[in-house]
Amino acid sequence: MSEVRILEITRNVVARNDELAQTLRTRFGEARLAVFNLLSAPGSGKTTLLERTLRELHGRVRCLVIEGDLRTARDAQRIAAAGGRAVQIVTHGTCHLESRMIQGAIEGIDLRELDAIIIENVGNLVCPSSFDLGESARVVLASVTEGEDKPAKYPFMFEKASAIVLNKIDLLPHLSFDRKEFWDGVDCVNRSATRVELSCATGEGFDGWISWFMAKVSAARGNETAPASKR
Amino acid sequence: MSEVRILEITRNVVARNDELAQTLRTRFGEARLAVFNLLSAPGSGKTTLLERTLRELHGRVRCLVIEGDLRTARDAQRIAAAGGRAVQIVTHGTCHLESRMIQGAIEGIDLRELDAIIIENVGNLVCPSSFDLGESARVVLASVTEGEDKPAKYPFMFEKASAIVLNKIDLLPHLSFDRKEFWDGVDCVNRSATRVELSCATGEGFDGWISWFMAKVSAARGNETAPASKR
Repeated sequence: MSEVRILEITRNVVARNDELAQTLRTRFGEARLAVFNLLSAPGSGKTTLLERTLRELHGRVRCLVIEGDLRTARDAQRIAAAGGRAVQIVTHGTCHLESRMIQGAIEGIDLRELDAIIIENVGNLVCPSSFDLGESARVVLASVTEGEDKPAKYPFMFEKASAIVLNKIDLLPHLSFDRKEFWDGVDCVNRSATRVELSCATGEGFDGWISWFMAKVSAARGNETAPASKR
Repeated sequence: MSEVRILEITRNVVARNDELAQTLRTRFGEARLAVFNLLSAPGSGKTTLLERTLRELHGRVRCLVIEGDLRTARDAQRIAAAGGRAVQIVTHGTCHLESRMIQGAIEGIDLRELDAIIIENVGNLVCPSSFDLGESARVVLASVTEGEDKPAKYPFMFEKASAIVLNKIDLLPHLSFDRKEFWDGVDCVNRSATRVELSCATGEGFDGWISWFMAKVSAARGNETAPASKR
């Protein structure tokens, strides 16, 4: 009984979340802004990916990073140290970000001064998959140290990704990771996502990631959207 | 508004969960059974830890493994292949196990024929921390590949652990992992947990884990509890 009630109410919350996410998406589109929702398990290397990305794109792309964490503001500090502009959302235990948190995070920010927003979600391969944040693209990051079975075991996360990035390939010589099984697992749930293998530690494969990222930024810049007054 | 309602209903669910967990704990105690709730991020090596544990304890400890996964039954198959007795719970997207699922999993099993139950929770460093499963001990597993900041970033998981196991130490020569920072982070939230560093791949440090595990099994065997008829 209580279970059914939870489910119903959760559906309301998800519906309300998605409605606000659509409003945000319209705003982002009007500002010709590419918005990335970056998702992974804890420790797959989301912040390290962002640090390297910001360094590579310094002076070319005006990025805002929105960091979601249960308690600390460490990631925002790391982003700032990498020369990035960051806003920290501390969820106080909530296992995912929601669109109202993004709305709060961008309050007072002139979106027309930005080219991209990258949202680093809470490290969690389950719950954040249900919450649209108004992003233009979802990026799911996995690392070879986590094992090749993750796409099969966490399909709900992988099925909605626009890009799937396999990180830490510099460690492959020290592991028994089966690349083919990993990508076969992805095939079962998602055949359209762009696939990148890289190492944020050594930079191997990073060009592929930057190319995909820049293509999304360019596509957003070129977007013709309805003017704000029409909303 | 909807948020507050969710929170209230979730509290009811947690209260109901915890009530049933207490009932299970009494049953486990009467059967002189050690019950372990094994928690970690996806890919930290929970199943690999169990495979090696079952092999080492073969013939000495009668274990049942309860596996929680979003969709597949792979882990139960791995446990069976390692000679273990396993029950699979498929949560169909639910991000954690609850005590009613454990009650279902042990239905028809004579607990007096067992010495230990090991519950492998869904790979998630956030949500499963709120749900008591009637366990005698919580084990939180982390791996060095995830970075030293995890205890600080996911404090709710680490603070309730009876044992904290740091896995994949064979990969330390290839990483910039800061052991001291990891354990300092643990100190901030949990000073009582037993701490073990090991590699499930090479077996280094595994003795420390087995000693702690066996001490828990022996303590449960020696427990004097009220007979079932008194409940």
